[in-house]
Amino acid sequence: MYLRCLNTLSAGGLRTVSSGSLAKRFHLNSAQIRKDLAYFGEFGVRGVGYDVHALRDHLTKILGLDRKHNVGIIGSGRLGTALAHYYGFDGANFEIGALFDSDPNKIGKTIGDVKVFDIKDFSSIAKRDNIEVAVIAVPAADAQNVLDLVVDAGIRAVMNFAPVPLKVIDDVKLKTVDLTTSLESLAYYLASDANGKNPKPNSTRHRKRI
Amino acid sequence: MYLRCLNTLSAGGLRTVSSGSLAKRFHLNSAQIRKDLAYFGEFGVRGVGYDVHALRDHLTKILGLDRKHNVGIIGSGRLGTALAHYYGFDGANFEIGALFDSDPNKIGKTIGDVKVFDIKDFSSIAKRDNIEVAVIAVPAADAQNVLDLVVDAGIRAVMNFAPVPLKVIDDVKLKTVDLTTSLESLAYYLASDANGKNPKPNSTRHRKRI
Repeated sequence: MYLRCLNTLSAGGLRTVSSGSLAKRFHLNSAQIRKDLAYFGEFGVRGVGYDVHALRDHLTKILGLDRKHNVGIIGSGRLGTALAHYYGFDGANFEIGALFDSDPNKIGKTIGDVKVFDIKDFSSIAKRDNIEVAVIAVPAADAQNVLDLVVDAGIRAVMNFAPVPLKVIDDVKLKTVDLTTSLESLAYYLASDANGKNPKPNSTRHRKRI
Repeated sequence: MYLRCLNTLSAGGLRTVSSGSLAKRFHLNSAQIRKDLAYFGEFGVRGVGYDVHALRDHLTKILGLDRKHNVGIIGSGRLGTALAHYYGFDGANFEIGALFDSDPNKIGKTIGDVKVFDIKDFSSIAKRDNIEVAVIAVPAADAQNVLDLVVDAGIRAVMNFAPVPLKVIDDVKLKTVDLTTSLESLAYYLASDANGKNPKPNSTRHRKRI
């Protein structure tokens, strides 16, 4: 998030920025900002602020975003296809190298610029195209098998969209994004609010409802 | 997640299930399961297990999933369009009622079954169609304005996909899903691992790399 903030500032021509100014611009707490950034080294000068470019370059490197990472998406259904088109997944830092599916009707097709390969060929394609990150966009019932398969192929960073808990070995980083559960948690909020269960720190609403 | 588990079991014809069996099936811890479910009431019978249907119906109600919620998506770009098609967002518990955009070229079009309305008409369309949940799928720079607009229109549950921290009043539930940051955290894992910084609880790998 800091890196994204710094990129915005840099694009706007700013050379230095104070933690207070960062806090205001991005609705963050300035003490937290100073603490977070101190974790990476000494970037701030008291009374002057942070050197935008130096801090940006340093964070870029720390985050491993000084080079592109090839991404393979397993599952070329609606979600997989959508992700293949998503700018955040196919932009400056990441590139969708390949889609994979087990459906013969989908294998061999091209979605956008991305070809759909047979999931059976994952290991060889991943090696050939230097795929480092796997995105799992298959139904819940297939997700564990797919995870095992990509891990066996040497993938160490996995993003899972299947709404199911998965087991993974220690040296693989698994990030699960469960869109359905996120949405359901909103329904829960609405339901518990209807029952008067949500805490309301302020007794009056801040905005008038129309 | 429990509800999803129970739905799967119910579809398979199971009437009762033990916490131990739930734990095995779904890679969960049985003590945690008992603790979590006890939070909602007394559903388990010692030595017998949980009544699948009763527990399922109860969780469904608690989660507010005993009725459909209409969802409005703001932003009909790639992500908004993808979400409009996503089964998790347009299935049993949720229905995409409308898309909204400010781009005259998009307003009036129909994506799938969903019409794109002028964002200016959000308040009246939301009221007419009983939209309860807003999904923000606009660029980061526009996200706060869109959030303020939907909250002013009376929306109390918001899912935000824009990679930016947003400010919201106390009685609105805001859930941010930042796909880009999730992906970047994987790049960080790969980078810090290359520098030998990732903890490896076991000195040998569990699986042989091919």
